[in-house]
Amino acid sequence: MLIGKRKVLIEWGDCDPAGIVFYPRYFAFFDAATGHLFRTAGLEKYDLRKRYDIVGFPMVDTRASFKIPSRYGEVIEIETQVSRFKRSSFDITHQVFKEDGRLAIECWETRVWLGEHPEQPRPRPIPQEVIDLLSGADR
Amino acid sequence: MLIGKRKVLIEWGDCDPAGIVFYPRYFAFFDAATGHLFRTAGLEKYDLRKRYDIVGFPMVDTRASFKIPSRYGEVIEIETQVSRFKRSSFDITHQVFKEDGRLAIECWETRVWLGEHPEQPRPRPIPQEVIDLLSGADR
Amino acid sequence: MLIGKRKVLIEWGDCDPAGIVFYPRYFAFFDAATGHLFRTAGLEKYDLRKRYDIVGFPMVDTRASFKIPSRYGEVIEIETQVSRFKRSSFDITHQVFKEDGRLAIECWETRVWLGEHPEQPRPRPIPQEVIDLLSGADR
Amino acid sequence: MLIGKRKVLIEWGDCDPAGIVFYPRYFAFFDAATGHLFRTAGLEKYDLRKRYDIVGFPMVDTRASFKIPSRYGEVIEIETQVSRFKRSSFDITHQVFKEDGRLAIECWETRVWLGEHPEQPRPRPIPQEVIDLLSGADR
Repeated sequence: MLIGKRKVLIEWGDCDPAGIVFYPRYFAFFDAATGHLFRTAGLEKYDLRKRYDIVGFPMVDTRASFKIPSRYGEVIEIETQVSRFKRSSFDITHQVFKEDGRLAIECWETRVWLGEHPEQPRPRPIPQEVIDLLSGADR
Repeated sequence: MLIGKRKVLIEWGDCDPAGIVFYPRYFAFFDAATGHLFRTAGLEKYDLRKRYDIVGFPMVDTRASFKIPSRYGEVIEIETQVSRFKRSSFDITHQVFKEDGRLAIECWETRVWLGEHPEQPRPRPIPQEVIDLLSGADR
Repeated sequence: MLIGKRKVLIEWGDCDPAGIVFYPRYFAFFDAATGHLFRTAGLEKYDLRKRYDIVGFPMVDTRASFKIPSRYGEVIEIETQVSRFKRSSFDITHQVFKEDGRLAIECWETRVWLGEHPEQPRPRPIPQEVIDLLSGADR
Repeated sequence: MLIGKRKVLIEWGDCDPAGIVFYPRYFAFFDAATGHLFRTAGLEKYDLRKRYDIVGFPMVDTRASFKIPSRYGEVIEIETQVSRFKRSSFDITHQVFKEDGRLAIECWETRVWLGEHPEQPRPRPIPQEVIDLLSGADR
C-alpha cells in the first residue's frame, strides 16, 4: 500500500491546561493526514468530487488508542495507509511516532465512498483507478 | 439596538497550557454570538441566504482587546449588538463580562453584506427589513 | 448510572465545506460532555485534581460511530454515562440524538485515573466516593 | 527586523460551509506564526519561561483585516515580524500572501512580557537579549 508520511509540529494552541495535546486535535491531524495520503496518490479532494461525482468520503467509524502524550514544541510523524478496500467503503490506519521512534497513537477509520444522487447521497463502488492509486501499484 | 446575550461555559479544550482561554477560541465564540444576535432578531443564516440572495456576511475587519483572562469552568457572558449600519456593511461590538460583572474583553467587527452574482459575490445594500430587525425597532 | 444530558447548538464554525459538522468537533463536544457528567455528579475537574491528588483522567482509547450527519443551526442532545468502572480506569458512553429523537452518533471512551507521582503520573484506584457519585447511587 | 516566514496548507477542517477558511482559524495560525518567529530567533517558549522567569507573552490586543478569502487545498505564506518594542510590550505584524503573491490578510498584535510574581503575574521590561535576537541584529 502507498504510505503517506507527514510531520506535525505541536503548537501551543493544540495543547490543554495539562500541557498535552487536547485529543480532539489529533482527529483534525488525522483527517488532514487522510487528505495528504490522497494528494500523495495524485487524488485531490475537490477534483475527486467532480471527477467521480461524489460528495466526498465521510467518516463512518473511527477509533484511536493513545499510548504516549505529546507536548508543545514536539514534532510527531503520522504514517497513513489504506488497510482495506471494501465495495463502497475503505479502512485507513494512522500511526503516530514520536521523534525517538516510539509509537504514540494508533488510529483506525472507516470512510464511505459517497456518490451524488438527486434525492440524497448514496454509497457507490470505489473506482478501480482510485484503488490502484492508493495501493501504490504503479509506483 | 437589539442586544444579543449569551453565556458561554469555558471548556477544558478551550484553554491552553497557561490554563487560560486560547484567544482564537474567543473569535469562534464571537462568530457564534453574531449568529445568535441574528437569530434573536428572527434572522436565521440559512434563511437569509435564500431570502436575500446573499452568500453571507463575511468578516472584513475585527479587533479584540483582552483585559482579563478566563479559565476552565468559568462562565462568561457575551453581549452583542450592531454599532453602525453602513450602506453594504455593518459594525458589531461584543463585550465579554465575567461572572462578577467585570468587562473582560471588547471586540469590534465589520462585516459586509455579500450578494450572489454570476461572476463573483458582490457587496449589496443591506435590506431595510434586516436593519429594522437588528435595531430592535419593533420590539 | 447517573446520566448527564447536554444540548449543543451546532455553530457555523463547527461545520466543514460539505455543510456538516467536521467530525473532530464532536470529540471536543464529548470531552466537554464527560466534564459535564462529572459536574452533574458534583465533581469539578480542578477540585478533583486537588482532592484526590490526580493529574486528571486522560483519554486512552475512544471510538465513535457516525450514523447521521448534523448541520449548522441544529440542536443535538448528548447523553453521557459511565458504562463500566475498572480498578484504575473507566468506560464512558455518549449517545447523540437529533431533535426528532433519532440516534446520530455513538461514542465510547476509556479514561485512566492518573495520580500524581514524584517521577511520573501513575494509574491509581478510582476512589469509592467517585464511583458512588458517578453511579448516582445516592440520588 | 528578523522576519519569520511560514507556509500553511489550508485543510478541509479549517474551512466553513461557505468553503472558505473560518476566520478564527487564522488567529490560531497567527499565534503559531509568532511562536515560529521566536523559534527562528532561537527563542523557544518553554525555555523563555524558565530563562526569563516569565509566564509568557499573552495577547492584549489584536486586529486583522481580511482582504481575500482562501480555500481548502491552497497554500498561504505568513510573514511575521516585530514592528515595535515598548518597555514591557511589543507589537507584531503578520502578512498573509496567496500563492500568486497577493496580500490576503494583515494582522497586528500587541503582547505583554509577563513576569512571574508571588501574588500575580506582572508586566516586566523585555530583556535586551530578546530584543536583539528578534531584531535580527546579529544575523
